[in-house]
Amino acid sequence: MLDDSPHQKIETVLGKLERAFANNDIDAAVNLFQEDCYWRDLVTFTWNIKTLEGHDQIRAMLTNQLAHIRPSSLRQDLNEVATEDDGIVQGWIEFETDVARGYGHIRLKNGHIWSLLTTMTELKGHEESRGFLRPLGAQHGSEPNRKSWKEKLETEAAELGYSIQPYCVIVGGGQGGIALGARLRQLGVPTIIIEKNERPGDSWRNRYKSLCLHDPVWYDHLPYIPFPDNWPVFAPKDKIGDWLEMYTKVMELNYWSSTVCKSAKYDEAEAEWTVIVERAGREVILRPKQLVLATGMSGKANWPSFKGMDVFKGEQQHSSQHPGPEAYAGKKVVVVGSNNSAHDICAALWEAGADVTMLQRSSTHIVKSDSLMDIGLGDLYSERAVASGMTTRKADLIFASLPYRIMHEFQIPIYNKIREKDADFYARLEKAGFMLDFGDDDSGLFMKYLRRGSGYYIDVGACDLVADGKIKLISGANIRELNENGIILEDGRELEADLIVYATGYGSMNGWAADLISKDVADKVGKCWGLGSGTTKDPGPWEGEQRNMWKPTQQEALWFHGGNLHQSRHYSQYLSLQLKARMEGIETPVFGLQDVHHLS
Amino acid sequence: MLDDSPHQKIETVLGKLERAFANNDIDAAVNLFQEDCYWRDLVTFTWNIKTLEGHDQIRAMLTNQLAHIRPSSLRQDLNEVATEDDGIVQGWIEFETDVARGYGHIRLKNGHIWSLLTTMTELKGHEESRGFLRPLGAQHGSEPNRKSWKEKLETEAAELGYSIQPYCVIVGGGQGGIALGARLRQLGVPTIIIEKNERPGDSWRNRYKSLCLHDPVWYDHLPYIPFPDNWPVFAPKDKIGDWLEMYTKVMELNYWSSTVCKSAKYDEAEAEWTVIVERAGREVILRPKQLVLATGMSGKANWPSFKGMDVFKGEQQHSSQHPGPEAYAGKKVVVVGSNNSAHDICAALWEAGADVTMLQRSSTHIVKSDSLMDIGLGDLYSERAVASGMTTRKADLIFASLPYRIMHEFQIPIYNKIREKDADFYARLEKAGFMLDFGDDDSGLFMKYLRRGSGYYIDVGACDLVADGKIKLISGANIRELNENGIILEDGRELEADLIVYATGYGSMNGWAADLISKDVADKVGKCWGLGSGTTKDPGPWEGEQRNMWKPTQQEALWFHGGNLHQSRHYSQYLSLQLKARMEGIETPVFGLQDVHHLS
Repeated sequence: MLDDSPHQKIETVLGKLERAFANNDIDAAVNLFQEDCYWRDLVTFTWNIKTLEGHDQIRAMLTNQLAHIRPSSLRQDLNEVATEDDGIVQGWIEFETDVARGYGHIRLKNGHIWSLLTTMTELKGHEESRGFLRPLGAQHGSEPNRKSWKEKLETEAAELGYSIQPYCVIVGGGQGGIALGARLRQLGVPTIIIEKNERPGDSWRNRYKSLCLHDPVWYDHLPYIPFPDNWPVFAPKDKIGDWLEMYTKVMELNYWSSTVCKSAKYDEAEAEWTVIVERAGREVILRPKQLVLATGMSGKANWPSFKGMDVFKGEQQHSSQHPGPEAYAGKKVVVVGSNNSAHDICAALWEAGADVTMLQRSSTHIVKSDSLMDIGLGDLYSERAVASGMTTRKADLIFASLPYRIMHEFQIPIYNKIREKDADFYARLEKAGFMLDFGDDDSGLFMKYLRRGSGYYIDVGACDLVADGKIKLISGANIRELNENGIILEDGRELEADLIVYATGYGSMNGWAADLISKDVADKVGKCWGLGSGTTKDPGPWEGEQRNMWKPTQQEALWFHGGNLHQSRHYSQYLSLQLKARMEGIETPVFGLQDVHHLS
Repeated sequence: MLDDSPHQKIETVLGKLERAFANNDIDAAVNLFQEDCYWRDLVTFTWNIKTLEGHDQIRAMLTNQLAHIRPSSLRQDLNEVATEDDGIVQGWIEFETDVARGYGHIRLKNGHIWSLLTTMTELKGHEESRGFLRPLGAQHGSEPNRKSWKEKLETEAAELGYSIQPYCVIVGGGQGGIALGARLRQLGVPTIIIEKNERPGDSWRNRYKSLCLHDPVWYDHLPYIPFPDNWPVFAPKDKIGDWLEMYTKVMELNYWSSTVCKSAKYDEAEAEWTVIVERAGREVILRPKQLVLATGMSGKANWPSFKGMDVFKGEQQHSSQHPGPEAYAGKKVVVVGSNNSAHDICAALWEAGADVTMLQRSSTHIVKSDSLMDIGLGDLYSERAVASGMTTRKADLIFASLPYRIMHEFQIPIYNKIREKDADFYARLEKAGFMLDFGDDDSGLFMKYLRRGSGYYIDVGACDLVADGKIKLISGANIRELNENGIILEDGRELEADLIVYATGYGSMNGWAADLISKDVADKVGKCWGLGSGTTKDPGPWEGEQRNMWKPTQQEALWFHGGNLHQSRHYSQYLSLQLKARMEGIETPVFGLQDVHHLS
């Protein structure tokens, strides 16, 4: 009897793929993929984060890499069940390379591979001390003058960065730096995290009072210690701050708070960075082999430039500096911008009794939080998903398995559904004059995030204030100049203001490289973030992956890490393994290092 | 076809039991149990922690309680599989009472109930905010002058204990008070935890330097936030201290550190305690309805009394005060006692270069840590158990399902196996003169712990030092008196000492009640801990449960909480539900309040 179960279909393809790899028969391997196909590799085959699209790219990759990588032991994960829906067979796979163990996901169409995800789980011989390999803690036996756990940590803290150099320095101790630091600690990579604030979590605590996470708890877990099941869906900023502080302590990170990174310079000959920091008023020179910028994926604050900004008598703030509404009750405030921060700040100011005007200069994508949670994320990241057995790891991998090239095709129907469901809501906003969009191709919030990291608001209440006129809206207008009393629009209207908040977003992360290292290095690595989709604020050519994030850049030993909590969690795994491999002297032949097409 | 699966056998019995309950047919219910039977109830039927042994006790309980409790909806948990081994059918059950939801475990022999465990999971209408019921965090919508999460917590911290009285005060902020405090917080019971130390976790940090947990990580989880899978098997004391501190913060407990409880007095007419505490140098009077002593299940330090203690020129410490070995390199130290603390302290002193003598006055039970982990705990609490799908909750319930009356019968074979495996080790110890025992009935460590909370050492290395003579051993000797220079034994031998450490254990927890409340109340509630087994330090009559722990006592509104991390985790669930029910005015008819047979 012919077994045509999904399991057997995958077995057949995997068997052929394994033989093709073993025989170094690249044509045979390539021909197992259908013509329209995607192979996304996270560090196992390419030592890069790379999506190969179509036969030619796969052939080129295998031609370069196969002899180095030596994949073997391709097999299905027998703890998971292969499925078939609408002609697409899906399953989970395990495999090895010469130096690593990997895990992945496969989709077949008509017996050929349509999508393949290959991710690195661990380096052989460098497995993390977890589960069966967890440390003993108590040191059994006896040993004269042994040090306690606490003494060892204290010694390490006293020596690292002074008499002993870290292998890695991470600049920026927010969620990104902390998640990566935890991974590196687990892998035994000596690392120092540099953070200008006083305490871990302050990058959240220092923001405006009403801020809560816009992503839900299931999407936000850090590595190793998930949030408990009493954790709020949308955690208030101070609560996340406290969690990050506790996490940093419990994960035993070398976290240099109240420390400012002043400069960094790479010595190509020594293959070493010189990083100058000021810690507690004293200059310390660090000489790590690797430097990670985790200074916020949004990069540096964008300050607009208007005539008269020096003349205006009131206060001006970038949204990242806004302290919250307390001081502005009864005051006139204009918030320039109409994305997340603008809405949050406007709502909090209105609640505190300020006279608030939002100045919308271009259209904004709005999605109600409930609808986004339910329709947009519910299958992977929700209590419903948890109840049905979905784990964070699996959700992350399913998400990672969707090729960026066609991701918008999966997103468009979701937002069509949301538009239909919330039609009345959108109609009310438009009636109030609000300029709406759903992305250049109607693919909604997540694509906007991946492409440009901006252009949307997840509504948790401010939209009603706009629709009801409680937050005054001026839309489609631009600022001509400022005078003593406020803003003059291009159409001549004047807006009086005691405070102007510029919720005007952030630049590319390589702006930090310009500040810390040099303009040359910033230009050499080029723009960070974005896919090259050719949509607004994400110019082409097509890159296929997010520019410069979590992967080798054109500057040797310089890395960018960041993103939302989901990305910090998931991609820190791949970045930490890349760093560990280099520390251990494991061969890491990078395939397809990205070219630079844009400077910022 | 007759279905004689384990599932069906349990279905049959549950169906009959449900009908008997519904018909108030107590005889029918009792007759479903075999003659030799045990029903352990944790708060659902008895509003007590109670094991009913045999038909008569079950009949008496049902006669008193059935009309109040109104059990219903008995059913098997369909997520678990019923099993049958050696003629014993086992399964998991769910049920309801008038006011609560319950979960339990059942064992059948020959179609009759041999053991039944019934535990309370939650009170109807007072479910915890977890999972699907977790809080939203962000407050959607808008509301003038709303307070942030942080402001609400700050307000609560400023008011509770001053302008607003807590419902419950817990004296003692160690692991027990913290675990219970977390449960009460989740249940919305306003609670203040009083702790004399500066920081949560200090009760661990302040102990001797080399201390690590003697129980393994799988056994030690706190409620809500399990240790991550990189956590050491035996956590060093400072690491546990840090975890407790972070836990207290993250679980948002009202934790009054650096606060001393000076006295407590119950007003029967007002049904209210007056608790006087000193917080930051200021006296504060608290008026809670319920008072929990979580001051350490070991109670107050036992200081021995010898002639000449006032004459001795050196230093004398109870083990609980011993600061660690640093100051004693090259000094002569005598440690009086031979249990866990004595061994740990001796080993650390030897490692630091002290001249150490252990004075063993009576026999001690020794078990190697590895053997205990593997043979004693491995099926329920180990990485192997986790890998096979055992959860902490399930392990706790299986453990709780074994009746205390016959628990030693399950334990004896375990220790026989250990004695055989480690025969050489025990022979070496005996050759060195060490007096060994395995408990009065050879049932080993856990029974000693439940009966008397003392009398053993879990070996992590000190035994080799004793066997090798590195720690000098004097065994079977008693102290006659002290002189200026040291100890004089009853046989006339003199032991010179610079330091004498009394590792002489602790008294009963009601000693704390005597100090804080009154001798009358301490005597009224009587001895805490122990089962009434009639073995050494656990005098009869048989009690069937641990005296006074986690359940109503003879003093209205006074409760004792404590034990190891496993017990703090598991029994805090039942104590918190008892307190919550009282706060909500739910009827809590207690069956079988224990009589007092011993004062201490």
